[in-house]
Amino acid sequence: MIVLFTDFGPGGPYTGQMKAVLARAAPGVPVVDLADDLPACEPEPCAYLLAAFAPAFPPGAVFVCVVDPGVGGARAPLALEAGGRWYVGPDNGLLAIAARRAGDARWHTLTWRPQRLSASFHGRDLFAPVAAMLARGEPVPGAPLDEAATVGGDWPDDRAAIVYVDPYGNAMTGLRAAVLPEDAAIVAGERRLTRLRTFSDAAPGAAFWYENANGLAEVAVNRGRADRVLGLGVGTPVRVEAAGAGA
Amino acid sequence: MIVLFTDFGPGGPYTGQMKAVLARAAPGVPVVDLADDLPACEPEPCAYLLAAFAPAFPPGAVFVCVVDPGVGGARAPLALEAGGRWYVGPDNGLLAIAARRAGDARWHTLTWRPQRLSASFHGRDLFAPVAAMLARGEPVPGAPLDEAATVGGDWPDDRAAIVYVDPYGNAMTGLRAAVLPEDAAIVAGERRLTRLRTFSDAAPGAAFWYENANGLAEVAVNRGRADRVLGLGVGTPVRVEAAGAGA
Amino acid sequence: MIVLFTDFGPGGPYTGQMKAVLARAAPGVPVVDLADDLPACEPEPCAYLLAAFAPAFPPGAVFVCVVDPGVGGARAPLALEAGGRWYVGPDNGLLAIAARRAGDARWHTLTWRPQRLSASFHGRDLFAPVAAMLARGEPVPGAPLDEAATVGGDWPDDRAAIVYVDPYGNAMTGLRAAVLPEDAAIVAGERRLTRLRTFSDAAPGAAFWYENANGLAEVAVNRGRADRVLGLGVGTPVRVEAAGAGA
Repeated sequence: MIVLFTDFGPGGPYTGQMKAVLARAAPGVPVVDLADDLPACEPEPCAYLLAAFAPAFPPGAVFVCVVDPGVGGARAPLALEAGGRWYVGPDNGLLAIAARRAGDARWHTLTWRPQRLSASFHGRDLFAPVAAMLARGEPVPGAPLDEAATVGGDWPDDRAAIVYVDPYGNAMTGLRAAVLPEDAAIVAGERRLTRLRTFSDAAPGAAFWYENANGLAEVAVNRGRADRVLGLGVGTPVRVEAAGAGA
Repeated sequence: MIVLFTDFGPGGPYTGQMKAVLARAAPGVPVVDLADDLPACEPEPCAYLLAAFAPAFPPGAVFVCVVDPGVGGARAPLALEAGGRWYVGPDNGLLAIAARRAGDARWHTLTWRPQRLSASFHGRDLFAPVAAMLARGEPVPGAPLDEAATVGGDWPDDRAAIVYVDPYGNAMTGLRAAVLPEDAAIVAGERRLTRLRTFSDAAPGAAFWYENANGLAEVAVNRGRADRVLGLGVGTPVRVEAAGAGA
Repeated sequence: MIVLFTDFGPGGPYTGQMKAVLARAAPGVPVVDLADDLPACEPEPCAYLLAAFAPAFPPGAVFVCVVDPGVGGARAPLALEAGGRWYVGPDNGLLAIAARRAGDARWHTLTWRPQRLSASFHGRDLFAPVAAMLARGEPVPGAPLDEAATVGGDWPDDRAAIVYVDPYGNAMTGLRAAVLPEDAAIVAGERRLTRLRTFSDAAPGAAFWYENANGLAEVAVNRGRADRVLGLGVGTPVRVEAAGAGA
């Protein structure tokens, strides 16, 4: 299975051009769009999303990760083997948290180059062909790389900020719910929110936080848009407070 | 064929996570995104859309229907066999009109549960795996249910309101054109609209209604956005008037 | 491979209905969404995009092209064989530039009609079934047509205007970079822009133009949205100036 994880935007031509490459280079391999509405040109929040989504995918899955504002510049193209899955993408931290959580990361600098490499679309020209090679079981076309040489090694294990706003307006944080005290409150947009189990446990219009289906602490409003109600966007900081503390 | 009918939003991660489940549990079965931009958290208008779209799909198609604001709460998960097709989704009326139109509905409460059931994403954890079972030809993992016990039995056969605004701004009603008099007018947004055959029969900028390609009465503006021109959105009521009547 | 090139909008039901037809009529043939966010109801800018995207697709690819404001009216349905690829779509110029660039265009008027042809959705009812026939290797179900009888023959080879704004806000022109002097400037939105190689060669927030990954001259802002910064939209004219000329 090849999994696309990009900021290409819904409907635009870039995902389709990648899929056309994959259909030819890895025929018969299922291609799944995991997300194409990631925060544009912001690898750091996306790194926490990737780490949250990846464990549900089967061993052998190959993630093509393209949030790549430095495309065509000096940043290196990488392949990462971690937790039995492969990841290809730019060296800008996008893969760093997934690697750290897996605990068995093996990094590679991609040395393979296509005959024609555009200066602005390495997703199509470099990362998709390499993903197809890996999905076909071929060896990684690169050289081993020390993790210390990659970007993101100094990023925190969890990120106390909004990393994604979903189409309903729910705001995912970069905090794993499992690392928070069971009765912790989250302060977001100047509101102190208690934890509930799911949407239908909140009154219509009420804000709360909960452990979402991918293990992240998520700020939500039952039958409403948390982003608008609370004034949240990607990058908005959040704060964890012990139960009973706070305003 | 497995057909996705959701309010997950274009580009977001939920459709992709469902497809990843389906790719593993029903390999080789085509998966078609019928819609992922349905009115969020509003099963009633979606029920009329589903009933309009479904007849064009082949026998044996399995619809995974997820417009599910009550997820994780008390609402039951259902499977429906109707008109030779299968539907899985929540008991909130979403499947009710498709069932009624088919005339041979057989309802089931799903009793199967996955090892891990999140509180907020039954589409991925429950409905997609069940759809895969049905697509593989396995028996429905549930118990028969009396239609009288399901939500939506008291909803009208047709709904005199806007049920969907498409990406062009055309506004579909929940009224089948075939049940309206040939020369009926539709009053929408305080404008009385006559029936035309298609867009190119209207002057540029002119508003009209017509029978859309799925049999619904649809309010449109040639080379314009009916939603903006007439001030229409999901839930806006419309009124049918006999020819010659009205303002 | 069947390639979808439409203005149906992301997430809506029209792409899914086409894919359901294709899954039945051409089982096993990969279907790639190249774009579904094309400028709605504007075949002229789309014609320049199609001509730019098509050459990267393999011989035998069948493009289903639906930007079709005249659907249901007098415009003819066409099939085009050019450059080893097939195209089906309306006679409104949408296919004209791809045909001209290939240099070996063979045009056909489609004479086949389905049992049920809606007045508003020929993409599903006519163009998709014909695309499936061509993908299956069947003869084109139509009659040869003289290119002089098709729309778009008088359109320029390149179009000095914005033809598409991508999800990042980058503004593609209808000008091939290869036909412009290497040191040409492009004036867009009253700003005179010089050419760079790629995004990371510009300072954050700086506007420039570059040859994009499909060969078109594209106006962009590093880490910004060119459409908003420069006030550009589909149809905004641009002007090419020799180096040293200008304001």
